Amino acid sequence: MDPEVIEKAKRVKSASYKAALLTREDRVKILNAMAEILDNNRDNIKKINQKDLEEAKKNNLSEAMIDRLLLNDKRINEMITGLHEVALMKDRLGDIIEMWKRPNGLLIGKMVVPLGVIAIIYESRPNVTVDAVGICVKSGNVVLLRGGSEAINSNIYLAKLISKAAEENGFPEGGIEIIEKTDRNSVDTILKLRQYIDVLIPRGGAEFIKKVVENSKVPVIETGAGNCHTYIDKDADLDMALELVYNGKVQRPSVCNATKKVLVHKEIADIFLPKMKEKLEKAGVIFLVDEKSKNYFPQAELMPEELWYEEFLDMRLGVKIVENIDEAIDHINKYNSKHTEAIVTRNYLTALKFINSIDAAAVNWNASTRFTDGGQYGIGAEIGISTQKIHARGPMSVNELTTTKYVVFGTGQIRK
Amino acid sequence: MDPEVIEKAKRVKSASYKAALLTREDRVKILNAMAEILDNNRDNIKKINQKDLEEAKKNNLSEAMIDRLLLNDKRINEMITGLHEVALMKDRLGDIIEMWKRPNGLLIGKMVVPLGVIAIIYESRPNVTVDAVGICVKSGNVVLLRGGSEAINSNIYLAKLISKAAEENGFPEGGIEIIEKTDRNSVDTILKLRQYIDVLIPRGGAEFIKKVVENSKVPVIETGAGNCHTYIDKDADLDMALELVYNGKVQRPSVCNATKKVLVHKEIADIFLPKMKEKLEKAGVIFLVDEKSKNYFPQAELMPEELWYEEFLDMRLGVKIVENIDEAIDHINKYNSKHTEAIVTRNYLTALKFINSIDAAAVNWNASTRFTDGGQYGIGAEIGISTQKIHARGPMSVNELTTTKYVVFGTGQIRK
Repeated sequence: MDPEVIEKAKRVKSASYKAALLTREDRVKILNAMAEILDNNRDNIKKINQKDLEEAKKNNLSEAMIDRLLLNDKRINEMITGLHEVALMKDRLGDIIEMWKRPNGLLIGKMVVPLGVIAIIYESRPNVTVDAVGICVKSGNVVLLRGGSEAINSNIYLAKLISKAAEENGFPEGGIEIIEKTDRNSVDTILKLRQYIDVLIPRGGAEFIKKVVENSKVPVIETGAGNCHTYIDKDADLDMALELVYNGKVQRPSVCNATKKVLVHKEIADIFLPKMKEKLEKAGVIFLVDEKSKNYFPQAELMPEELWYEEFLDMRLGVKIVENIDEAIDHINKYNSKHTEAIVTRNYLTALKFINSIDAAAVNWNASTRFTDGGQYGIGAEIGISTQKIHARGPMSVNELTTTKYVVFGTGQIRK
Repeated sequence: MDPEVIEKAKRVKSASYKAALLTREDRVKILNAMAEILDNNRDNIKKINQKDLEEAKKNNLSEAMIDRLLLNDKRINEMITGLHEVALMKDRLGDIIEMWKRPNGLLIGKMVVPLGVIAIIYESRPNVTVDAVGICVKSGNVVLLRGGSEAINSNIYLAKLISKAAEENGFPEGGIEIIEKTDRNSVDTILKLRQYIDVLIPRGGAEFIKKVVENSKVPVIETGAGNCHTYIDKDADLDMALELVYNGKVQRPSVCNATKKVLVHKEIADIFLPKMKEKLEKAGVIFLVDEKSKNYFPQAELMPEELWYEEFLDMRLGVKIVENIDEAIDHINKYNSKHTEAIVTRNYLTALKFINSIDAAAVNWNASTRFTDGGQYGIGAEIGISTQKIHARGPMSVNELTTTKYVVFGTGQIRK
């Protein structure tokens, strides 16, 4: 157990009761002050970020990794705009969303309240420090941050800045804490602190999230991995299907809601697959195919069984021909990661069957898998996309970081 | 890893997709058939239950333990009535509870769907076998049961009966499974099967639940322990306060929503504590007190620090005098188990402060702590009372065993 972590977790827990009593006005003021302090410290942010960048170069991190660490004016602007936007979002804290009267006169109500202490363990990108805290503060929560070692200087500085601005504007002291150690022990300690942490949200690669999920004694919301399929039905509009597959796969291949596998009904394979091959090959897509579709892709490798489970975050795309909608549904429910699944069809009954049968956070009918996103849904900035079933499913924003408590108004009722 | 558990978990998982497609009509028919098969097999149930009772006597279990195992006609009737009542409850499965249109024309909706596979690990009472399955089936889920060794013969027989009735009426094969082994290994295996089990609900003593929570890789909903306080404010109606404390403590001391500790404002201690002592002592209550209240209870022992955290499931009652509402709130938030907390006061501002500040599943104003219960809330039979914050808080019934999935209706939209 890491004493720094325990100490900070206690501080955050104790701040959580005070944070829950802030008003909406208070929170808006706090978030805007956080934005302002970033704006006033651009040069310092960039200077401190340089340390992480230099360290990264010294350690021969890839260009892509180094790019993720970078904080330039554009990215600082995005953090600032993000905080202002979160400040303006609607929240339901304190609302009594239902209240009913019992035969004995008791009024039973459900009041929206913060979750309390949210711990976020994240990798690389330093902007997560600000974005995550913004959503947590907006939803009445306090935060314990534990960022990755690559961005630790930037993370600590950003957390200190926004914490200072928050506290100067009424946020309880200790309500935003960042763990300065980046060793494995600090993570292990967080995973054990059920008495201080209400929810843990890991953000990072699939392996990392799996490790956290499997070892945490604190309730975790699993976010992330998207082994998303697009199924092209025999009744699909094939031009639309081509656009949706292209958009799903190519527009941003490295993200969770990108299309990773395409299933094609056997009756339209002859027409559709050659077109798809032509268009996607030009974009650099590499196909991995099943036995049946092999003759449309003579150069492609066969997909090994275990890769049907994998989330390709690169230009690889799986292709499979299915006999019918049932095979498509069974295949998806077996191999998917419960993120986003899409069907392309004009047939209403087929679509409803797919929608009702698929087990995933989002099921799309004639829409790109890429839409699973808080902003695209219109619910605002998100802290992650939940792929588990309890608490919240899909993009998690301000409302998903709250819970309810029953409030019971009586006039002396006793139980008989 | 226990092969029986893995095999059954796989079967249940595969049945879950089919169970999700049943209609409301189907589920009502299944639940009523389950009730009927119990009614038609009363003698067999009682005969098999005898085995457990004899075993219990042989093992010198306490009278109270043996009573918990007993299935007589009254208890069989309760299971039957319970199933009929659950059949009639409202569910929201398949409802699209919200749907909104985005600027690009996408319709984004949230559809209520079952959680999927619910595993229930429970101790002693065999009626849990039927009650739990009833609520799970009503909410579209499938169930993996693992009951305690004391009632294993009754549990297996009940599960086989209701599973038979369910399958004969359209419930998917393997949708209700019971683990026949009752060793520790079968529990340990369940805790690891994240790929097959969506949620795990442990039911039993505090120690047992703690063990499950701390070791499970499957998402758990923590139910149970209730270290509930009743705070008597200086502005309380003292007659009402006396009734509420009496009811909270004495009506059924062995349950989670009973009052375990009483906090009394110093200004009314002189009047209230002697009256409370007199009335509760007659009922057999044993007081454990803080320093300040000691002179009202000269015979009572002082409460050791660690017992402020404990859920007294017997006639013990903790008593503490507080300086003001703030001390009451701080004490409760420090020591409570997030179950139910009550305030007795006529003062509106004090009550609101308490309601807003207390962190618990239920906060009662002028009402007995004993009301935290699905039936008393009017939401129907419950599968447990959640004391954690994520997913569901307080009594969990049919609606709390569902989740949502996003359904997105498009006309070919792609992300830009």
